[in-house]
Amino acid sequence: MKEPVNPIRPTDAAARVLARSLLDDARTAALGTLAPDGHPVVTRIAVLALPDGSALTLVSALSAHSRALRADARCSLLVGEPGPRGDPLNSPRLTVRALAEPLDSTGPDRARLRDLWLAAHPKAKLYIDFADFFFVRFRPLGASLNGGFGKAFELAPADLAG
Amino acid sequence: MKEPVNPIRPTDAAARVLARSLLDDARTAALGTLAPDGHPVVTRIAVLALPDGSALTLVSALSAHSRALRADARCSLLVGEPGPRGDPLNSPRLTVRALAEPLDSTGPDRARLRDLWLAAHPKAKLYIDFADFFFVRFRPLGASLNGGFGKAFELAPADLAG
Repeated sequence: MKEPVNPIRPTDAAARVLARSLLDDARTAALGTLAPDGHPVVTRIAVLALPDGSALTLVSALSAHSRALRADARCSLLVGEPGPRGDPLNSPRLTVRALAEPLDSTGPDRARLRDLWLAAHPKAKLYIDFADFFFVRFRPLGASLNGGFGKAFELAPADLAG
Repeated sequence: MKEPVNPIRPTDAAARVLARSLLDDARTAALGTLAPDGHPVVTRIAVLALPDGSALTLVSALSAHSRALRADARCSLLVGEPGPRGDPLNSPRLTVRALAEPLDSTGPDRARLRDLWLAAHPKAKLYIDFADFFFVRFRPLGASLNGGFGKAFELAPADLAG
């Protein structure tokens, strides 16, 4: 086996536009968290990208991932769905490494975030006001964009702002 | 906020059938690995479920996730795509906690696994024989099935066999 080489390309405007469009289009993400024993665990969450490059989710306190995020804020989001045709590894996707910040449901942003969320996720009106549901904001630390074979980029948090 | 309760249901035959069908239908998965600094990272991989409940992937040695798995075998796979309609959190999905076992490309199973892989992933013929590509087998430690709101199950490795 050959020695691995670094296949990362310099980040350019097209990479930033693609990364932002993947964030803007995402309504779900695969969330990576750490179990209490340190094992990485991936679950599905609903998401909404915010203009500053952070992202929002609404989770139940009953879920294992919400407990994991309260215990250790380190996490990642994978966005970008594989298309129906062709090799799924040639579909663009973005991994955002982040720290999770649970938001207080009595905070000043609550009404604004609730409106934003329901505009993107209308079915959430069934449970958004349940006592065990709360918002979590993901603050990006960096991101890896894979635009298809041979198109890998590393992005800084500022590259994700819309 | 209420004290979290345990919403896990007893595993039954229907849960096993649903879990296995999610594995059988999966051609991609969200893979959770650990970065060298311990941060959880999620990337997309191609997958193929094997009859014993393990799963196979084909990765490049150039990829960050293949290096991560060689450094720390602990990982998870999320399978089950959100449907086009309705609340994506009501679509069934399965998280398999696993240990990754890189397979030697000169091993006795190589020809059989290569045929199985190409039957499921025909576009991989473009790169399956490249020197930097190798198979990794995921040995399940356990799984969490979410069949939609209020339908959560914990499964043992034997529950995943087809």
